[in-house]
Amino acid sequence: MRFDIPLLTEQIRAGDRRALARAITLVESGRDDHRSLALDLLDQLGTDRQALRIGLSGTPGVGKSTFIETFGLMLTARGLRVAVLAVDPSSARSGGSILGDKTRMEHLSRDPAAFIRPSPSQTQLGGVARRTRDAVRLCEAAGFDVVLIETVGVGQSETVVAQMADLFVLLLAPAGGDELQGVKRGIMEMADMILVNKADGELKPQAMRTCADYAGALRLLRKRPQDMEGYPLAMTVSALDSTGLQTAWDRMETLAHWRQETGIFASTRADQARHWFTEDLRAEVMALLTRDPDLRARMTTLEDAVARGEMTPAVAARAALAPLRGA
Amino acid sequence: MRFDIPLLTEQIRAGDRRALARAITLVESGRDDHRSLALDLLDQLGTDRQALRIGLSGTPGVGKSTFIETFGLMLTARGLRVAVLAVDPSSARSGGSILGDKTRMEHLSRDPAAFIRPSPSQTQLGGVARRTRDAVRLCEAAGFDVVLIETVGVGQSETVVAQMADLFVLLLAPAGGDELQGVKRGIMEMADMILVNKADGELKPQAMRTCADYAGALRLLRKRPQDMEGYPLAMTVSALDSTGLQTAWDRMETLAHWRQETGIFASTRADQARHWFTEDLRAEVMALLTRDPDLRARMTTLEDAVARGEMTPAVAARAALAPLRGA
Repeated sequence: MRFDIPLLTEQIRAGDRRALARAITLVESGRDDHRSLALDLLDQLGTDRQALRIGLSGTPGVGKSTFIETFGLMLTARGLRVAVLAVDPSSARSGGSILGDKTRMEHLSRDPAAFIRPSPSQTQLGGVARRTRDAVRLCEAAGFDVVLIETVGVGQSETVVAQMADLFVLLLAPAGGDELQGVKRGIMEMADMILVNKADGELKPQAMRTCADYAGALRLLRKRPQDMEGYPLAMTVSALDSTGLQTAWDRMETLAHWRQETGIFASTRADQARHWFTEDLRAEVMALLTRDPDLRARMTTLEDAVARGEMTPAVAARAALAPLRGA
Repeated sequence: MRFDIPLLTEQIRAGDRRALARAITLVESGRDDHRSLALDLLDQLGTDRQALRIGLSGTPGVGKSTFIETFGLMLTARGLRVAVLAVDPSSARSGGSILGDKTRMEHLSRDPAAFIRPSPSQTQLGGVARRTRDAVRLCEAAGFDVVLIETVGVGQSETVVAQMADLFVLLLAPAGGDELQGVKRGIMEMADMILVNKADGELKPQAMRTCADYAGALRLLRKRPQDMEGYPLAMTVSALDSTGLQTAWDRMETLAHWRQETGIFASTRADQARHWFTEDLRAEVMALLTRDPDLRARMTTLEDAVARGEMTPAVAARAALAPLRGA
């Protein structure tokens, strides 16, 4: 594939979805020459356009595809342009992320105001995180108003998504008593809103009980500076019946506006940007280091010795870098 | 201060507490020549001796000093040698960590089988973490059986302590209804045991209620692979009356033995060692980079542009490293 950066820049800024898809393919590429072109493209696109970035976490079975489909269509019906990205480091192994099968969001995927992109297929979360952040920037440059970043909740992927989102939403399904244990440690702490889905038909009473349980659990947590009065909150929705989704969006907007007015929105973004700068810097430095095969082999040997407890990490790190110190 | 590494190695392995204290001063030093000597020392000391590393988190007011004093004396009375280290990045600002004033642990600090060391006074958590890990290795080389790593619970310091501990214990005080919110987000998720202290006198009923509340909250969390049946657990103790401490220690030993038998103990240490190797490698690389004043100034300018949203982190990272790419 050939990439004409000035042309691609122009097409993306004009909102061309096929150009956007090609650009995301470029930022996802592992090739050095592609990386260089991707950075040129990001540089050209600038940072003047911004979307509301919403992180959405939910394990399989909570009805996330249906939620994104219905929620996304509600937003486009309001005149908003919606992009959906995924962070799912396991997609390479499991043979397809939740978004791999676009037919599960058949209406949204055909909506000209929407753009859906599955997770990059890499096994390394760090790699997926970098690629997805770059994809968020591309979607913003293409004029999308809302970027939904969804994660299936494997390993540390929620933390990564929370670090690139303005709001973090946790989607749950109704559960019986013992199943409440199912929320992964640490996720509840990151949520701005917990949505208990499937509050329809026979499951409705159970959804309301689950919601009350989580509302109680949220009250056990200490307030964070970014918590508006009444947040984090738990509420029920039904993606199937399309109930509660308008209210959920109103609550998201209310929180986002409050954070904008208090300056928390901007300061969080500044902190996130600093964080990613450091991460990118580290990744680039490590790439520089491991490009050399001798150095890479040396690092692997040392890491194994450290893991076996035969060497102290600090000593091994010094040994790994000895060739760089003009030795 | 002059450091004779072969002599220091010999003295530490002989269990000399003054030599240990000097060695910790060496690993805490920010000087390049000291760092080099510290790494020589760690290299010489090897990794054949190992202690049980217990992370202990508790905010001011929970009676942590009294707990460490009583718990530590109980362990030394059992013939165990106990080292107490602290991770408290705020100590430089607050003018002294909880361990700064050894008189609060006057019996333990005079016990020849114990060694107490306040937190290194640095404002950067990363720096404190590295120094403390090195200090843990030094204590192990000096033949200590138990290393207590305490943290006052500022910022991310519990995560750092959990990443260097075999067991993680959270110490709490009895609290009334609303005060339950006081547990910082994410800490409960890391705990293997929650000890509700001050279960004595008038506070006893309240301590038992608090304990029951946290036991209930722990049940809401999903089991981790490192959780033995019945763990994580919540129990009451009184450091003042010395009640529950023997039981607490038995529970810690039971969990540690189970983890040893299942191989979880060793695999957790291997994962931690790999983690710290990567962290040390990154810190060393960043140190190499920021030693040059021009490069450092360039990085600061770029980071500020990123924080203001004027530049994408990835683009800024490439620009920061341009001088290294043979440009």
